[in-house]
Amino acid sequence: MKAAIVGATGYGGIELIRLLHSHPDIESMTVFSSSQEGKQMAESYPHVTGIVELTLKDIEPERLKEHDVVFLSTPPGVSAELSATLNGGVRIIDLSGDLRLKNADTYRHWYGRESAPDALLQEAVYGLTEWHREEVRTAGLLSNPGCYATTVLTGILPLIQKQAAEAGDLIIDAKSGTTGAGRSPSAMTHFSEMNDNLKIYKVNEHKHTPEMEQELTRFSGKEAPVTFSPHLVPMTRGIMATMYVPLSPGWQQKDLENLFEQCYRNSPFVRIRKDGALPFTKEVYGTNYCDIGFTVDERTGRATIVSVIDNLMKGASGQAVQNMNLMFGFPETRGLDYIPMYP
Amino acid sequence: MKAAIVGATGYGGIELIRLLHSHPDIESMTVFSSSQEGKQMAESYPHVTGIVELTLKDIEPERLKEHDVVFLSTPPGVSAELSATLNGGVRIIDLSGDLRLKNADTYRHWYGRESAPDALLQEAVYGLTEWHREEVRTAGLLSNPGCYATTVLTGILPLIQKQAAEAGDLIIDAKSGTTGAGRSPSAMTHFSEMNDNLKIYKVNEHKHTPEMEQELTRFSGKEAPVTFSPHLVPMTRGIMATMYVPLSPGWQQKDLENLFEQCYRNSPFVRIRKDGALPFTKEVYGTNYCDIGFTVDERTGRATIVSVIDNLMKGASGQAVQNMNLMFGFPETRGLDYIPMYP
Amino acid sequence: MKAAIVGATGYGGIELIRLLHSHPDIESMTVFSSSQEGKQMAESYPHVTGIVELTLKDIEPERLKEHDVVFLSTPPGVSAELSATLNGGVRIIDLSGDLRLKNADTYRHWYGRESAPDALLQEAVYGLTEWHREEVRTAGLLSNPGCYATTVLTGILPLIQKQAAEAGDLIIDAKSGTTGAGRSPSAMTHFSEMNDNLKIYKVNEHKHTPEMEQELTRFSGKEAPVTFSPHLVPMTRGIMATMYVPLSPGWQQKDLENLFEQCYRNSPFVRIRKDGALPFTKEVYGTNYCDIGFTVDERTGRATIVSVIDNLMKGASGQAVQNMNLMFGFPETRGLDYIPMYP
Amino acid sequence: MKAAIVGATGYGGIELIRLLHSHPDIESMTVFSSSQEGKQMAESYPHVTGIVELTLKDIEPERLKEHDVVFLSTPPGVSAELSATLNGGVRIIDLSGDLRLKNADTYRHWYGRESAPDALLQEAVYGLTEWHREEVRTAGLLSNPGCYATTVLTGILPLIQKQAAEAGDLIIDAKSGTTGAGRSPSAMTHFSEMNDNLKIYKVNEHKHTPEMEQELTRFSGKEAPVTFSPHLVPMTRGIMATMYVPLSPGWQQKDLENLFEQCYRNSPFVRIRKDGALPFTKEVYGTNYCDIGFTVDERTGRATIVSVIDNLMKGASGQAVQNMNLMFGFPETRGLDYIPMYP
Repeated sequence: MKAAIVGATGYGGIELIRLLHSHPDIESMTVFSSSQEGKQMAESYPHVTGIVELTLKDIEPERLKEHDVVFLSTPPGVSAELSATLNGGVRIIDLSGDLRLKNADTYRHWYGRESAPDALLQEAVYGLTEWHREEVRTAGLLSNPGCYATTVLTGILPLIQKQAAEAGDLIIDAKSGTTGAGRSPSAMTHFSEMNDNLKIYKVNEHKHTPEMEQELTRFSGKEAPVTFSPHLVPMTRGIMATMYVPLSPGWQQKDLENLFEQCYRNSPFVRIRKDGALPFTKEVYGTNYCDIGFTVDERTGRATIVSVIDNLMKGASGQAVQNMNLMFGFPETRGLDYIPMYP
Repeated sequence: MKAAIVGATGYGGIELIRLLHSHPDIESMTVFSSSQEGKQMAESYPHVTGIVELTLKDIEPERLKEHDVVFLSTPPGVSAELSATLNGGVRIIDLSGDLRLKNADTYRHWYGRESAPDALLQEAVYGLTEWHREEVRTAGLLSNPGCYATTVLTGILPLIQKQAAEAGDLIIDAKSGTTGAGRSPSAMTHFSEMNDNLKIYKVNEHKHTPEMEQELTRFSGKEAPVTFSPHLVPMTRGIMATMYVPLSPGWQQKDLENLFEQCYRNSPFVRIRKDGALPFTKEVYGTNYCDIGFTVDERTGRATIVSVIDNLMKGASGQAVQNMNLMFGFPETRGLDYIPMYP
Repeated sequence: MKAAIVGATGYGGIELIRLLHSHPDIESMTVFSSSQEGKQMAESYPHVTGIVELTLKDIEPERLKEHDVVFLSTPPGVSAELSATLNGGVRIIDLSGDLRLKNADTYRHWYGRESAPDALLQEAVYGLTEWHREEVRTAGLLSNPGCYATTVLTGILPLIQKQAAEAGDLIIDAKSGTTGAGRSPSAMTHFSEMNDNLKIYKVNEHKHTPEMEQELTRFSGKEAPVTFSPHLVPMTRGIMATMYVPLSPGWQQKDLENLFEQCYRNSPFVRIRKDGALPFTKEVYGTNYCDIGFTVDERTGRATIVSVIDNLMKGASGQAVQNMNLMFGFPETRGLDYIPMYP
Repeated sequence: MKAAIVGATGYGGIELIRLLHSHPDIESMTVFSSSQEGKQMAESYPHVTGIVELTLKDIEPERLKEHDVVFLSTPPGVSAELSATLNGGVRIIDLSGDLRLKNADTYRHWYGRESAPDALLQEAVYGLTEWHREEVRTAGLLSNPGCYATTVLTGILPLIQKQAAEAGDLIIDAKSGTTGAGRSPSAMTHFSEMNDNLKIYKVNEHKHTPEMEQELTRFSGKEAPVTFSPHLVPMTRGIMATMYVPLSPGWQQKDLENLFEQCYRNSPFVRIRKDGALPFTKEVYGTNYCDIGFTVDERTGRATIVSVIDNLMKGASGQAVQNMNLMFGFPETRGLDYIPMYP
């Protein structure tokens, strides 16, 4: 199989390269970048010296169509445009947010820019793998979920689907490593100001919010806004979402444990902690796992649910490859069977 | 003035030494430790070489009473015992949790050990300075608040007192640097496993919880349990409490801003961020400030309140010195007028 | 093939498990620990939950002999004892320092304890793979090199062997992440005191020194002490050795480049940087690579050579697996073909 | 006394503000910036909210001359120009490298740009306080040393001056926190790529090299190039220079100890470690101290000297204030008597 990676020099791109290089069904990779044509990957990333010997190519739609799958790890807007051009000619996995929302108005509101054509929005399959496996298998145009959305939805959808909790009551306190902010240097992620510091940003204004709400509505049948606070933690990889929700009457610790076990029994990348144990971000480092723990407080009737992922893996490139596996009929875990690197 | 520090080799102790050494009204300091009699402070902490030339002394109550104030930076149980022995003979500032709760049963439940004598519990003044200034001034036995409790209560009490929110609705997601866990090496705070990692622990079981609830009840008149999740962030100092609460009808961003400004207009160590700006932990590094920001989400009617402190300063030794200043009639900021170290 | 790991709960052990679990020629692994018999690996390391389902067994020599290979990731002294018992009955790869030195007196001097029996010291093959491949292939008892020694020797031996420099002139400034210090919590590696801090320790007294000198003598024919300063850097993994040496007359940048290229042309895990480029530790993160760069200063006639490895991989478990591959006739890179995780 | 800070929004500038704000002899501060006229300091640095209420002013020479002292924390070139304009009209402390070298050719070679006018180069006093106290007292134009140069020279000059070692034999391995690289975000100091990583850069090409060599020549009477390797460590503040040098015959550990004690007996900011103890960077965090340790290796006859400073303090703004104190007849430690913040 031939894979193309567009936007190969970003963090999503280089992580795709790490995964696809070792994927037994990928026969060749081609890497594209809008501005660095002719450069070797190793010039941009010395860590692949002698391993990945690929030259960056200029983005040409005809060339892209010669592949079996095209990964778009491109900025907002660029993905929409490329998807429109390529769609139908090649199967697409888009890692940007351009195709995640079904409603163009919602996109415009949260992203502050024009949306992709409505037909594309409607066609794109939202690739939260565990919750849309059948659609993913046949998708021609797949929209890979946001890192925060993946963490949150994987942890909360079981409760929402079974009405153990109401989406409208959901409070999400999320913490991310800095790679989620991408490779462009900025004041926010300057080492001198991020080290030994904890930051909070875009409270109730983060672009992954409508994506969560869309899915919550899909599985609850109700519209309900969530409260969402992202934080930036001085670490490279990892997201933890700590979620708070009042439980419907009758639900207890053991019921939640059964619910989660049941819900994810056929999902190799979701691991459920037992007996109130809670996961730490490093326990999924470098892998596609989503680890989930929870604890019910009898004093308040609230559940605290903790979901962790590696933002570059299950939160981006790992889930993209998981989706590719389904789209092309490979086993879901193919090329993703890493053990977390610890410590 | 003569100050004694018991438990001088812990982080609370060494931070007290840093502050009192430069405090213009402290004429002499004596340092005590249960196990290291005869050692120089600089043997334990090379950073004070040539600055603090003090020899650790064995803990003898009679010797302690020769001072004007005794700081107890001692483990649970030890503080209770020493307080019982010394009380009446010298003014005491206890940094442990032994005297924070008025109710002995509550202490036993959360701390899993016998409480201090009830008379001491009743007599001890809870030293959350901004909220108990008058009591602090005359206190003979002062119980210095917990680091998490200080962060949370300073951020939420204004709303509770003015009924802008209900204590029972309060959800607290707190994140701390590792110095809050003390100086004893442990698996939890081993560098190799804490670096590049985010941990969550003791959800709804942390000892600072009843202390928060006691104060919330005092200012609301109602008993109401809170939801409280502490996290450990890979940084040395700093606590951020992100708090979520539905607002009473009519309260908006500007109302909260006025409320906070009004409430803390005479509190030199509380700084209110305006227009929805939110503080980062490093913005109070090394100082006694508590910085507070907040944002009201019109979609959900919830407020998100962010409160940050340096856990060793306003969360421990800084507030202890602030209390000492009031107890002895010094200006509240005496010896505490540091600018945050940034970056 | 059946592999046994003794001391499986240390960092060397868990890294071996990560590697061997995915190694295509390992059919089964058994894990042993002196003190935790009956415990699941996942109790000690939640990150392997659902992946590695192994129960720790008590260390019994007869049981160990039922395997094809035994990895000893045990403390000094224990390795010597187990090696003596097992030797001849099973092929052994010892990750401790017990069998690295040929001279028992030297061992006693640097390790401050009695050495293993002399016959074992003489029999053990020093597993610096790139420099002892032929011996490694037939080794029954293999002693895996120290992490610092591997970094240093891989970077400097080409010059020593070809007399481009004198071993006696060698100055080594090495910097390590904290995992090199193992899993036991200590004041030295307590997060609160290691974060945002740079430490230096055991200057000219580190146990890896005689191991370097033994190899330098082997390839130069001369006895010559080195100057060696290890530092502890606030990072989890990685070693960088910055080495300084005057060059023999006539040697220039391009000559060194040729020398290294030539020397390591058949060594898949050694990567040479060109044109004076120097490697960073993260460029080998999680892999068995040793990356080497160098620069010649015409003003002083000195070369600065920079060698980096991942201390848990090429510095311990990775090289152990590389040696196992040779010992059992597998391709050298089998089960070790990871791309560095970056960032 | 009235102080002006030009380039107030850089890290050198904000550290000067921290120090001068609490300096008892500074009556007023004015802050200047080339591009942010009219902005409040707190907009750029929220941590000074409510403490430093200063508005940035445009850089006008006439206005600058109204002060008693002008600190130039400006980029290369800008400092030279402003110095030329202001010199004679006001006492200047320049924190850039523009005036550190006496030889214009050397400046051009290492800085790759035209030097300041030769008259300025000759007039400027090199403000390595401990070694040029008398010149500093009367300086009208003071050039504050580089952070690496300060660390290195304070640690090695005693040996050079007393011929315990030869400057030409000196090998310097230096490690710095990231604040030395300034406030502008860059790929090099992007958190995602600097965290958990150790970098080496500009080996034998760093601009602080000629400054070290100039001083070494001044105190040895000989010209001799040094070997100098700077590294970037994942920490915010701190520099450690590990220096290697063969000792002249007869010099031993105790002789060095006496030499250092004698040399710095009247230098309040230099602290000598005894008995081979070596300092860590955090032991001077936030202060103007330079801590020095050393150990002599009898096997090689080499000394390893370890010198640590806080790069923003003794390496920049702290030493600038120390120099100001001397220039204006204040006690050397005035406004600098901080205890290191630890941990």
